[in-house]
Amino acid sequence: MKRNSDKPIRITEVCLRDGSHSVAHQFTEEQVRSVVRALDDAGVHYIEVSHGDGLGGSTLQYGRSLVDEMKLIEAAVSECTTSKIAVLQLPGIGTVHELKQAHALGAKLVRVATHVTEADVSAQHINMARELGMETLGFLMMTHTATPEKLLEQAKLMESYGAEAVYVTDSAGALLPDDVRERVRLLRQELSCEIGFHAHNNLSLAVANTLAAIEEGATRIDGSVRCLGAGAGNTQTEVLIAVLARLGVDTGVDLYKMMDLAEDVVGPILPRSQEIRKGSLVMGYAGVYSSFLLHAERAAARFGLDARDILVELGRRKAIGGQEDMIIDVAADIAKQRKQEVVQ
Amino acid sequence: MKRNSDKPIRITEVCLRDGSHSVAHQFTEEQVRSVVRALDDAGVHYIEVSHGDGLGGSTLQYGRSLVDEMKLIEAAVSECTTSKIAVLQLPGIGTVHELKQAHALGAKLVRVATHVTEADVSAQHINMARELGMETLGFLMMTHTATPEKLLEQAKLMESYGAEAVYVTDSAGALLPDDVRERVRLLRQELSCEIGFHAHNNLSLAVANTLAAIEEGATRIDGSVRCLGAGAGNTQTEVLIAVLARLGVDTGVDLYKMMDLAEDVVGPILPRSQEIRKGSLVMGYAGVYSSFLLHAERAAARFGLDARDILVELGRRKAIGGQEDMIIDVAADIAKQRKQEVVQ
Repeated sequence: MKRNSDKPIRITEVCLRDGSHSVAHQFTEEQVRSVVRALDDAGVHYIEVSHGDGLGGSTLQYGRSLVDEMKLIEAAVSECTTSKIAVLQLPGIGTVHELKQAHALGAKLVRVATHVTEADVSAQHINMARELGMETLGFLMMTHTATPEKLLEQAKLMESYGAEAVYVTDSAGALLPDDVRERVRLLRQELSCEIGFHAHNNLSLAVANTLAAIEEGATRIDGSVRCLGAGAGNTQTEVLIAVLARLGVDTGVDLYKMMDLAEDVVGPILPRSQEIRKGSLVMGYAGVYSSFLLHAERAAARFGLDARDILVELGRRKAIGGQEDMIIDVAADIAKQRKQEVVQ
Repeated sequence: MKRNSDKPIRITEVCLRDGSHSVAHQFTEEQVRSVVRALDDAGVHYIEVSHGDGLGGSTLQYGRSLVDEMKLIEAAVSECTTSKIAVLQLPGIGTVHELKQAHALGAKLVRVATHVTEADVSAQHINMARELGMETLGFLMMTHTATPEKLLEQAKLMESYGAEAVYVTDSAGALLPDDVRERVRLLRQELSCEIGFHAHNNLSLAVANTLAAIEEGATRIDGSVRCLGAGAGNTQTEVLIAVLARLGVDTGVDLYKMMDLAEDVVGPILPRSQEIRKGSLVMGYAGVYSSFLLHAERAAARFGLDARDILVELGRRKAIGGQEDMIIDVAADIAKQRKQEVVQ
């Protein structure tokens, strides 16, 4: 495989953070311990442990965790021999206080995550993380809603704050391989720091998109074993390791151990199989957050529409989390337009 | 999307044939009727109905069908308003007798399938199908085991017998996107007939491989709704239609109806979710038939090996169905080699 980088590929397993959404944040300490132990044994470089919405996410709004994430981070750290524990932080949800606490418990890496157009809110957190001596990466979410040029502008901000890598994050699983290629290529040309890529599998393209990102020079790669992540899940880690092995890319992660832990350790804690079902497919197709689905269905019932038409229009208008009130406006607009079409 | 063909994309849904393996050939007539009715309503071009191993496959060796496939074909034909019913035929399993019967019942298209190096055994069946006035396509299986040049030689044979399209069939889900690209490109350059592509999702690359095939000029495309096919299933049809719509390729198939039938009609008859589990991942990684797995596990136990090492070596030796006796030899060779390594 041709790669536009000579740095090694480093894998971050996110099933204990992104997968937290799939279990409604109900991971037990023993589940976290057993998964971390197996991933550490397989040689995975980083294992992310946080509430699904990052440090401090355990609230009524985002969903209460069963076990305090600090307790889970501490347990995870104690199981590692070579793997490093990573945490996710969304400024506005988590504060610098939780970051310091996670660091004190042994977390070595933080990804500071913002919407793709709001990198400026990451400055303080990136600064603090660097001061703490943590490996500090920027995480730009919903990248499919921004042009590559806008993404680059925001990535440069994160780099200027001190991020040691910037991630292209396909939160809705809406990017197609050529979209990924274009974005990673541009960042690789224009940034000095490493590039990361985080996929979702809503359009069944997570592994292919990840290969495209790696070819273009991404070296920080996220995956979730058995696709245990939000929506349709992420790049299935054990599958990615197998495909990279076939392409001659040695990640240092033990393929057979990954296959075994996927079956024997993660399999039993999957709340449901991570197939691509109607809801996640619609999200990837429309390019919107899954939190919109229920609101769109209600609006569709009220205006006599198909919820999918509303979601597609929301995607076109680049609606983001927190803009759920836009849904009624969109539904009203579509209904009005339909009526005019009938009249004409 | 740039496509190396100006012919329309035509979709063949294989969940009622390849998916027959997943239900141990126990489809009921009512299941077949309801799925065909929904697919016809969505505008799918072809719907394949046959035993998983093709016409005549209902035997002790390949597994008995619950309902006679001719009855299922007749029922399927009666449900169609625009879709056409296709059948699969493997010379050596099905005979010209069954083909005539299927044709008399209203099947309009046949795919004559052989191992990638054995196209010559398809001549009689392709001839007969053309004489019957059926649309007649060739189906070259396990294409990852042959060089592109060998594949071309065999595809030319099928074309010379009268095949109106030749399929690149990735039976083990072992091809990577660049492998697909190379093969379809060569066939597109050298053949006059249409090119088809049939994927399996063992490495989570079925949709991406199908996109690569379409870009290179393939126009006959297989999929299975909800991945209801052998192993990890095929290209998930409703996902492919969504991705093609995003790329501006109108297949004429109704995306929303496909999403709905995937959830409401096919979902309830899935015997299990079609995730990528250990068994199918190993098969795609090693590039061997799933029928080898049990034999390899037995041989592994006998020689104190990991079954996966045996399967990978079988893949390297290009073992094909019927060569299960090779498994013990391979296991013995690996064990011997390991012993020598310890001595040295």
